[in-house]
Amino acid sequence: MIEYRNLRIALLGAGSVGSQVARLLLEQGDELASRVGAGLELIGIAVRDVDAPRDTDIPRHLFTTDAHALIRSADIVIELMGGIEPARELILLAINSGADVVTGNKALLATHGPELFDAAEQVGAQLYYEAAAGGAIPIIRPLRDSLAGDRVRRVMGIVNGTTNFILDRMDVEGDTFENALAIATALGYAEADPTADVEGYDAAQKAAILASLAFHTAVPVEAVHREGITSVTAAQVESAQKAGYVVKLLAICERLTDAQSGVEGVSVRVHPALISRRHPLAAVHDAKNAVFVQAEAAGDLMFYGAGAGGLETASAVLGDLVSAARRHVAGGPGVGESTHANLPVLDIGAVSTRYQITLTVTDKPGVLAQIAGLFSEHGVSVEALQQTVSSADPSRSAGEPLTATLVIVTHEASDAALSATVAAVSQNDAVVAVESVLRVEGDTP
Amino acid sequence: MIEYRNLRIALLGAGSVGSQVARLLLEQGDELASRVGAGLELIGIAVRDVDAPRDTDIPRHLFTTDAHALIRSADIVIELMGGIEPARELILLAINSGADVVTGNKALLATHGPELFDAAEQVGAQLYYEAAAGGAIPIIRPLRDSLAGDRVRRVMGIVNGTTNFILDRMDVEGDTFENALAIATALGYAEADPTADVEGYDAAQKAAILASLAFHTAVPVEAVHREGITSVTAAQVESAQKAGYVVKLLAICERLTDAQSGVEGVSVRVHPALISRRHPLAAVHDAKNAVFVQAEAAGDLMFYGAGAGGLETASAVLGDLVSAARRHVAGGPGVGESTHANLPVLDIGAVSTRYQITLTVTDKPGVLAQIAGLFSEHGVSVEALQQTVSSADPSRSAGEPLTATLVIVTHEASDAALSATVAAVSQNDAVVAVESVLRVEGDTP
Repeated sequence: MIEYRNLRIALLGAGSVGSQVARLLLEQGDELASRVGAGLELIGIAVRDVDAPRDTDIPRHLFTTDAHALIRSADIVIELMGGIEPARELILLAINSGADVVTGNKALLATHGPELFDAAEQVGAQLYYEAAAGGAIPIIRPLRDSLAGDRVRRVMGIVNGTTNFILDRMDVEGDTFENALAIATALGYAEADPTADVEGYDAAQKAAILASLAFHTAVPVEAVHREGITSVTAAQVESAQKAGYVVKLLAICERLTDAQSGVEGVSVRVHPALISRRHPLAAVHDAKNAVFVQAEAAGDLMFYGAGAGGLETASAVLGDLVSAARRHVAGGPGVGESTHANLPVLDIGAVSTRYQITLTVTDKPGVLAQIAGLFSEHGVSVEALQQTVSSADPSRSAGEPLTATLVIVTHEASDAALSATVAAVSQNDAVVAVESVLRVEGDTP
Repeated sequence: MIEYRNLRIALLGAGSVGSQVARLLLEQGDELASRVGAGLELIGIAVRDVDAPRDTDIPRHLFTTDAHALIRSADIVIELMGGIEPARELILLAINSGADVVTGNKALLATHGPELFDAAEQVGAQLYYEAAAGGAIPIIRPLRDSLAGDRVRRVMGIVNGTTNFILDRMDVEGDTFENALAIATALGYAEADPTADVEGYDAAQKAAILASLAFHTAVPVEAVHREGITSVTAAQVESAQKAGYVVKLLAICERLTDAQSGVEGVSVRVHPALISRRHPLAAVHDAKNAVFVQAEAAGDLMFYGAGAGGLETASAVLGDLVSAARRHVAGGPGVGESTHANLPVLDIGAVSTRYQITLTVTDKPGVLAQIAGLFSEHGVSVEALQQTVSSADPSRSAGEPLTATLVIVTHEASDAALSATVAAVSQNDAVVAVESVLRVEGDTP
């Protein structure tokens, strides 16, 4: 029998996740030890200011400002500081000191992931990051291990709780974007400056991490096509409802072949999209997150849970900690990351999706044929077209022509072909306004 | 560097899952080898009759009837024969020959799981069984590894595709049970003898496996309280819809304390139940499966996917195979099963749930008060009560008294208290019939 000493755990950061991790480690130490086969000793918590007011359950002597000394004495380092520096430098120090690292830092992984994984691989250390790609939702192990004998085709995720809360309010309560955002802010789901959430920056970081994992390919966050939800209107949400859809902010990672160049690669994008109300992602309400995975053999899978929250995310961190600790106890070299396939990352122009286009047109004979002709000329095939005459509009003055609303759903079309079609349509004399252009994902309701 | 030889893989069984596993292993061998760091050589497939007609993609020389000789030459044995014997005996032979084992045999694990896990532990072998507990859905690793630092409180699963298909048809199309079953049979979702599915036996086996895993406790399938869906009526489904619920066959595993004895234990049950249409499990349509997990820190999680199907289940088997192979390559002792907590398995009498009771009563003054009094006498608290007078019923003959329908939803009550209440209610003169008694799980819609 091998004799085990306690494993020495260093924690960097004592914010909402860090303080929960510290508390759970101290409270449930015995239970965790029995699952690992060794004690887990929290040897210190690196913070900027040891005298700052914080959770009184944590003994004050654990706090230190000397992160370097703390890391050098640790077997496992948990980084929960967030941001790029000094997190990056401290993780590299930990790896080079022979420690395994658990991190929940999505901004860092989305920008410097390859550098950190390479550094870990060189010294045989492991980097665990379940908390960085979807809060509490176990997604890393399913993608890395459970689907290791399969081929992932597509990952479609609701990976930002704030935007899902806002869109869910707009759908269920009929709120405008501004109202829903105000409520999200009041309830603490949105920050004072909501830009990172509503403009899709947070979702783009998670999309980069998920794509890297699903396709064994380094995807930098700059390569993610990103659109936020600030321009989603109550009218779009209502019209989606009528057609059996719901509007969701989706992070979509897919393996595809560029039709023009024939290059096989990976495409990653974040944008609002219509999805059938029967799709499992449509049932993701409030601030919940979910990741929908399509694999060649396994078919459709979905992983659902809390995408954020201090306690919830702490669960993912502790799961990683137990894995890291078991690896120390087992003494094996550990399960390495899969070989990077390093497929090229394709531009949004290579992506084909269905689109829903809403137009206001003058209601006179021949307009429908004209518009249909423009779609056809640009090689965009129409799946469904619905016209509603708004003749009853009381705000119309006597001289104005009658108008109609045209809702067109296309078959799959490239971003480029669709953009050209919309440009041509908006130039047409019979078109009063292009009211809305939204991508449609998944099956027709 | 260690020099790797090919890992020798033996397959037992060539049914719908086995033949897909063999095909994928042969077709994608190079890709799998690159993920493992060693070749995966399929050395043979044990079958009862080598001359039986089967998938022509598999070279005939691989088939053998000598399972014993095949197992003795293998590094990893994949058991996909199903049934108890000879599967049990062959898995024990594999373990004692030093092989790791991958199995998808839920009947065997639900009845002889502890014996097999003990045998594996004694010789340091590993037993992988992702395919046994929910087809293609990755649930084992999330429960065992991702939540290793958390405490699972409750697992609620839709773990049988046939019954979910039938109940979904009844909900969406308004079919009767008999019609929906006939369609399921015609489409191949139900077998000629549907007993194992519709009476909940299959779900009970999976519930036993999930409970054992979630609570580190050996739960024999005999200890699972089981009710099927054959008595679910179109009227119940319709009435559930009106109240914002949907009827699902749920496998529920929970950790609880018996109020009478004070004993902390595990309760496992399979029965039809009402669940809010806003609950993520309500969005599980067709023959899909999902497992909803409530953990102390992580909160609510859900895992969704195909619960059956040859190709889908093969994905789970190959994921396990890659894990087993990586362990061989790494050479470490592997990650053991968590220590068994071995909590007692509690009787259904220890469980408290909410109930919906539908009664037909004579419509005369004082009946409501009488019925409410009976609930109160038995300590069952009423959450909501709705009365509909059926005076417009044209089939009522002149002499008959007017009747009314009472739908009562209770607060949490024990199985024992509820049964006593229903017995007393059915004896009451004003009660024409107890139409329906269904458990309610999760929040009110």
